[in-house]
Order: sequence, then C-alpha cells, then structure tokens
Amino acid sequence: MLLDKIETPAVLIDIEVAERNIQACQDYCDEHKIALRPHIKTHKLPRLAQAQIDAGATGITCQKIGEAEVMAAAGIKDILLTYNILGPAKLARLRRLHDEIKLSVTADNLAVLEGLSEAFADADWPLAVLIECDTGGNRCGVQSPQNTVELAEQISQSMGLRFAGLMTYPKAGGTADVQAFMTEAKGLLAEAGYDCATISSGGSPDLHQAHLAPVIKEYRVGTYIYNDRSLLVRGACGLDDCALHVLATVISTPTPERAIIDAGSKILTTDLFGLGGHGVIIGHPLLAVSALSEEHGNIDCSRAPGSLAVGDRIRVVPNHACVVSNMVDQVYLMDDGKVFSVEAVAARGMVV
Amino acid sequence: MLLDKIETPAVLIDIEVAERNIQACQDYCDEHKIALRPHIKTHKLPRLAQAQIDAGATGITCQKIGEAEVMAAAGIKDILLTYNILGPAKLARLRRLHDEIKLSVTADNLAVLEGLSEAFADADWPLAVLIECDTGGNRCGVQSPQNTVELAEQISQSMGLRFAGLMTYPKAGGTADVQAFMTEAKGLLAEAGYDCATISSGGSPDLHQAHLAPVIKEYRVGTYIYNDRSLLVRGACGLDDCALHVLATVISTPTPERAIIDAGSKILTTDLFGLGGHGVIIGHPLLAVSALSEEHGNIDCSRAPGSLAVGDRIRVVPNHACVVSNMVDQVYLMDDGKVFSVEAVAARGMVV
Repeated sequence: MLLDKIETPAVLIDIEVAERNIQACQDYCDEHKIALRPHIKTHKLPRLAQAQIDAGATGITCQKIGEAEVMAAAGIKDILLTYNILGPAKLARLRRLHDEIKLSVTADNLAVLEGLSEAFADADWPLAVLIECDTGGNRCGVQSPQNTVELAEQISQSMGLRFAGLMTYPKAGGTADVQAFMTEAKGLLAEAGYDCATISSGGSPDLHQAHLAPVIKEYRVGTYIYNDRSLLVRGACGLDDCALHVLATVISTPTPERAIIDAGSKILTTDLFGLGGHGVIIGHPLLAVSALSEEHGNIDCSRAPGSLAVGDRIRVVPNHACVVSNMVDQVYLMDDGKVFSVEAVAARGMVV
Repeated sequence: MLLDKIETPAVLIDIEVAERNIQACQDYCDEHKIALRPHIKTHKLPRLAQAQIDAGATGITCQKIGEAEVMAAAGIKDILLTYNILGPAKLARLRRLHDEIKLSVTADNLAVLEGLSEAFADADWPLAVLIECDTGGNRCGVQSPQNTVELAEQISQSMGLRFAGLMTYPKAGGTADVQAFMTEAKGLLAEAGYDCATISSGGSPDLHQAHLAPVIKEYRVGTYIYNDRSLLVRGACGLDDCALHVLATVISTPTPERAIIDAGSKILTTDLFGLGGHGVIIGHPLLAVSALSEEHGNIDCSRAPGSLAVGDRIRVVPNHACVVSNMVDQVYLMDDGKVFSVEAVAARGMVV
C-alpha cells in the first residue's frame, strides 16, 4: 500500500527507525551488562516485543494482565508485571499466566502479598515477587530501604511466593536516588539473609544514565523504541530517531494563520508532559499544533501564513508516543516509505 | 452482575440518570421549539442514540464516517456529519451511507465542495450540505456572514449537492455571537435567493442559553447525557446528574497522604478543560485525583490522611466524559446499583 492510500488520521511506524532504536538501546545495555526488559506499553505489538527479545532483551514488562495475556499468547515467555495485582478475578488470570510463562510481579504492601499468596499457595512453583520501592517518583512503592526487609520476610514466609529482588520507577533525573536507595536496601536485605536476584529500574529520559547507578541489574524502558517530542525536547533523541508519526490531512484553512487537521485528541491525546503545544510537524518548523479538540487539531500558521492548503498531508511527532498507540486499532508499519503491514495493536485498550 | 464482581478500572453508566438527562434536554428543546440532534461522541452506543431518538431527537450528530457507519448499521436513520469530508476513500463511504439513510454534512471551503460534488454528481438525490460558520470558536468555519453566500452559490451550482443551511460550533459563552452572525448570514443568503432550511448550533456548556439565540433551529449537544466534572464546575449540572463514573480500586497507600488507584490516563485521559486535577471522587470531598500516569492515579489524601486502604473501591466523575467513553471497549450499564448490560462501545476508536 502506498502512503497516499492511507485514510487519515493514521499512525505510521517506520520499522527501520524502530529497529535502529531497539539495537542502540540493547547495545548500551550490553556494554554496561544491564539486562534490558522493554516495556511494551509504547507499541503494544507482539511483533515488536519479539523484535526486542530477538535483539537480546531478557523479557518484557507489562502493567496490565490483559497486556501480558496478549503477549503470552503471541509467544513471549518472560514477563514482569510491574503492578500490584488485587482481587479474585485478576489473581485467577495471573495464576493461569504463571502456568504458561516465566512470570514475575511487583508488590509494595501486605494486602497485595496476602492475595498473591492465597492464589499461588498450591502452585507447582512459586511466583517471583519484586518489592516496589519509591525512590522519588511519588507513585507506588515502599518509602524507605528499611521497609523492604519487612516485605521480603513476608514474601519468604508466604506459601507460593518467592522474593526476587527490588523494582523502582524513578523520577526523571533520579538515577543517584535510585543508587542510594537500592544500595542501602540491598545491604539491609543481605543482613537479614535475603539476596536480591535482580534490582530493576526504568524510564526513558534517563536510560543512558543507568550505568551511573551500578546497583541496577535490569532496566525497563518503553518509549525509546519510537521516541517522541517529550524525548526530543530533552535532547534524548533526534527527529530522525522518531519512529512514530501521526499522518493527518488539512481539512480547513479558515484563515491564512490557521489550518485545521483531522487529528485531534482522539489520536494525539492531550498529554502535555509540561510542553506547550501538541507535537512537532515534520518539515514545517514554523508551524505548531496549538490546540486540540477531539477530532480537530489547530495548526498555528501565524509564522508562515498560507503555508498549508486543504488536502495537504502532514506528519506529526506527538508529545507522547505510548498513549498514541493506545488510541488506534491498527498502525501502519512502513519500510522505505511503503506500508508493508497494517498491524493490529493487539494489546491496545487493556485497562484490566 | 453485582458491582463488586466488575474488574477495575471500569466505566459505569447509570441508565436512570442518563435517561433523565435525555428527557430534560428534550423537554427544554421542545419547550423552545428547537430541534435536538444529539452528538453521539459522548456515549458511542447505538442503544443510547436510539433512546435519544425515541425521546424526540430529530436525528444524531457524528464527526467521523466510522461513527456514522456504526450508527446507521444499528438502525439510526438521520445523521448529520459535522465534518469536512475529503479524499476518495472517505467520499466513497459517504456515498454508501447516503444511499442508506438521511445524511447531511457540513463544509467550509470550495475544495471540500468539489470533492463532495464529484462523489455525488450521479446520486439519485442530492446530498444536503450545511455551511460551517466560525462564530468565535476558532476552529473550522467561514469567517464572515458574507462568505456564506459564495459557498451557498457553489453548492447550488454543484451537481449532487443541495444547500441545507448553516452550522456552527460556538465558543463557550458565545450565544450572542451565534445570534448576530447567523442572523446576518441568513439575511444575506435570503437576499441572494437561498433559504436556510436549518441553522444548527451546539455545545453542552450553553445548552440552556440556546433559546436566547432564536435564529437557531437545531441544537447539537453531547455531554449532557452523562455530564462530567467540566459541566459540574460550570454549574451546568449537579453531582447526581453525572451518569458516567469510573470505578477504580486503591492498589497502594505508600503514605497516609497518598493513595494510588488503578485508573490512570488510559481511562480518565489527561483532558483538563482548564481544571486542576483529574476528577471528582464521589463520597470523598476531601480527596483529589492529583496526578495521572498511564495506569496509575495519584489520590491526594493530605486533607484526610489514611482515609483510603488498599482494596477500597472508589468512583470518579471524570473531567470530560466523552473522551473516557473512547478509552474502553465496553461500559457497564447500571440500573438501581446492578449491572444489566455489559455494552460494547460500538463507535469507539473511529478515527476515520
């Protein structure tokens, strides 16, 4: 299929760029002897998860059981679910997954551990549980290195569970905090007789700082495979490293200073990440995506009036690639400017 | 199905509240002799579109052909597509729809009219085209009442097309602007020999102002069926009028001041609408949804420390109901606290 046959708006993935990004990240991790466990939330495609594994990744990361189920069904054999799993329905699904693949999960509190233990008490082999640590991200996680000891004790006393190490999703720029927290926790755990088989950190913005926290044994990262405007602005990638583009058509030019495209928040989303505007328009450095409603994007042409006409097609690098993948049922995989696969986003919309 | 069997996060729709909202809006429009044409983007459910028709709506509004196709297939017979349709693939789909139902579209430029005319030149009956007017919304639309005359002439000279009136999506608080623009345009068109069969305005925030612009013959409105925090804050509804709730589970309480729920931007979205925070938590006036990542919602409990525990379930009225409907494959229709249907969101994700 040629590009001009694609109905817009559409999400295009340049496979060559994606593969280059996969390899560059793997090379970095190999160089520093860090296990790479990509987060599939960015692409939600079994094909690209497999490409990440084939390049040398140790396994993948998912946050929802639905994502893990899709990936396991597609043949991925090693999945870390970085999420507190609660409730009988989810625990039953988790147990089924555990029977099929090498599964590990995280937990940061006793209530979650109780549920896991109840569901896995009679499992043939124990479920690997990592303790989630809050190293400054202010989301989930135990608040101090000391807290990890209590949970490790609980895990090792729980039927069906096995203590497998520590996990954190740090704040941006938090590499030193990760090193400090995890080093102390690892020491306290060792004193108490618990060995951390792995210590897992993550996050795209600080990927290339991972080796500055040598306590980290594994890194989880998602966005690097596509990149996006948030990483571009941070200097973590160049425009040529952005594999995901939203293809849009100009449907109206009400004034020379304003063009309207058929891509709104229903495909670009309203994620700002602290940025002004909603994406970078490739080849039009003077234009900006200044506002979005659900089905319309406003292009500010005031610095280049009249530069777009009705029917023109433009490509937008969105602020945040991961959330764009979640908005569409299919993406167009491109090679050398041609579509070679209309790929179903198999793990899209998996909220449970 | 009982509420506690639903896996979270989940979107719940209280059908009694939705039906009450449908009726109240229909009553208002009936009282003021305004035709009501609900926008289905809010619910994306054929069942509720039919309920709106059954209550007296003249037809429905869609923005994407994919939405209209779903609604037509479900038996809806009168659809206005408030969108500039461009390109051979979309025009062919539009033509097929036109053969099945009473279809009308909008246009604001000559390029769109040329495409429409080419696709409909040999149609058995002409396609009704409304001219979109920018009355201050700064999105699509001709910029002045004078501009409508040129487009009306073009429509009436185009094979396969029929001039059907004017349409606008006004800015919030723009009722007087609509009245002024449309009155002038209607007059100019009459002088040129063109009759406006309808003049269509819309928007939830100013729904109950519609009668203050008597030039309006039809009103398009979406959010009123569910309501949301954006309308609540504007005083356009009460909390009891909010039919859509996101049901979420507390998965972590890292500190007494912070709880984490399993609903993040993948279900609540990052739409802010100028508001601080991401929703109203029902029954917890001292708590706030302070931050979202894709799969996590941070609840600020600093004004009521320790008030949530792991496993607790809460209900959130989101900032913007329409976009939440687009995030899920199914919603739970509730009556008297019980689920009576797990309804597929049939028109979800229709970006083309």
